[in-house]
Amino acid sequence: MADPEAPATELRMSIGELTEFMTAAFDRPLTWRIERSDLDGVRVRQPVQSSDLRPGGTVSGPTLMSLADGISYIAVLARIGPQALAVTTSMNINFMRRPRAVDVVADAMILKLGRTLALVEVTMYSDGGDPRDLERPVAHAVVTYSMALVGREGT
Amino acid sequence: MADPEAPATELRMSIGELTEFMTAAFDRPLTWRIERSDLDGVRVRQPVQSSDLRPGGTVSGPTLMSLADGISYIAVLARIGPQALAVTTSMNINFMRRPRAVDVVADAMILKLGRTLALVEVTMYSDGGDPRDLERPVAHAVVTYSMALVGREGT
Amino acid sequence: MADPEAPATELRMSIGELTEFMTAAFDRPLTWRIERSDLDGVRVRQPVQSSDLRPGGTVSGPTLMSLADGISYIAVLARIGPQALAVTTSMNINFMRRPRAVDVVADAMILKLGRTLALVEVTMYSDGGDPRDLERPVAHAVVTYSMALVGREGT
Amino acid sequence: MADPEAPATELRMSIGELTEFMTAAFDRPLTWRIERSDLDGVRVRQPVQSSDLRPGGTVSGPTLMSLADGISYIAVLARIGPQALAVTTSMNINFMRRPRAVDVVADAMILKLGRTLALVEVTMYSDGGDPRDLERPVAHAVVTYSMALVGREGT
Repeated sequence: MADPEAPATELRMSIGELTEFMTAAFDRPLTWRIERSDLDGVRVRQPVQSSDLRPGGTVSGPTLMSLADGISYIAVLARIGPQALAVTTSMNINFMRRPRAVDVVADAMILKLGRTLALVEVTMYSDGGDPRDLERPVAHAVVTYSMALVGREGT
Repeated sequence: MADPEAPATELRMSIGELTEFMTAAFDRPLTWRIERSDLDGVRVRQPVQSSDLRPGGTVSGPTLMSLADGISYIAVLARIGPQALAVTTSMNINFMRRPRAVDVVADAMILKLGRTLALVEVTMYSDGGDPRDLERPVAHAVVTYSMALVGREGT
Repeated sequence: MADPEAPATELRMSIGELTEFMTAAFDRPLTWRIERSDLDGVRVRQPVQSSDLRPGGTVSGPTLMSLADGISYIAVLARIGPQALAVTTSMNINFMRRPRAVDVVADAMILKLGRTLALVEVTMYSDGGDPRDLERPVAHAVVTYSMALVGREGT
Repeated sequence: MADPEAPATELRMSIGELTEFMTAAFDRPLTWRIERSDLDGVRVRQPVQSSDLRPGGTVSGPTLMSLADGISYIAVLARIGPQALAVTTSMNINFMRRPRAVDVVADAMILKLGRTLALVEVTMYSDGGDPRDLERPVAHAVVTYSMALVGREGT
């Protein structure tokens, strides 16, 4: 198996494969749309849904946390491949602006991908269609993953 | 209005009032049960639900994050009262053990309750009925709230 | 070697041994005084020093961060013993009150001690001699350690 | 006074003014060198010093934490000006690689600059002269500041 610490020169899963894997992992249709996945990271769009809103028309904090957790996992999978067992070990999230009742767009960037630990930075935006929307993040998260590569101990 | 920085000598909302307030705030029946609320903090039980589980029988990370966010809010409300506008500004959560497919019990303790900022510590457990279950946390979170007291500026 | 995941029924280092180990590790006399070390955790006192103060008579933030890092390490060592190689992997610290120009007292409690990861909670106080001082924390930190047990791979 | 929430179209302090301000604030000569300050953020170099090293030739964790705290303050000052009273309220730092016994270079970017809260992202590198050194961060921090503008209440 290839070295996960090697510089990122390739992706191990396509957007289609990532979507399929996440759908199976969560056992339900994925509402997130993976819009981009390349060596710089991953972009995911969460279409606004009434179940994610709080009275007053704000996307709930747990919706953003859940998205930050999910996109970090997707970003790690894209680089490591589906044989990885990655478990979230921590998240630090800062809420910066009130998220409006529009789509949430999340960008994930891998800060470190080691043999046992991955560190992912996530920036989230309320995207109402104005190009300036993607300059004003609503939340920022740093997520750590502990990784156990399947077959590592057995082989 | 009383000084929120004063030592905690009283609670401003009963368990019944907190439940009613949260139900209205979330616009749906509260699945969390507030089991305890006193000057030491708040205990909330989240009965296990299939929608919170991941394949493999683990309670999902976002379920724990959502509970940590919710119980922190409840703990702040209990001390400040329903006139408070408290907005989560950050959460730092560490996942420590695999949460089993049983109830999650969360304990919240207020570390600081200032005029504009509150800091809440949350410890979460998988409660399968064994008394030792509440000695082995599955996750630990520190949550900060920014508070704006309604009417503060107007009066 | 004993199982680090076993319940804490013993300590592997005395206060004297911890002080000696830390002095050697830092290559200079330890200004911290380890006041307590038992199965509940560790208490360390940092006597106020002019080099830790900011103009205005406040203990500096980096002084508190350094103490939080150090006491976490001491708390892990007390339980794991000097053969451990523990490396700080993260710290989340919240500053809650202005630390006065008096001794800082830090309490560390181990939240999790696994085979590869330890999680330590640290609460810090400005101790000017008033018994109530130890009820009003000035800062709170959660520190994670990655542990590699010497000889694990070689033997 | 100008609106701190306005888009960053100007800097309020030059590198010379920042250096002078920090020297006065810390009451001793600044060992950090501010190498860059523009609308994208600030770069600071900390020349390697023996007092920052641990036996084994690693820059200590507290050295990195102190630098992260300091550069965040510098980045906020550059945008707000010296009339600001900014107090660190939290730091979340992840240590990613062993920092070698060479200069540390830190880059700070302001994620949010509100009226009362600022959020700064800091990435740190071991700079031994190899151009690739600045592609492999040794640590990453997110720092929050609470700001009170002098004269706000009085005027």
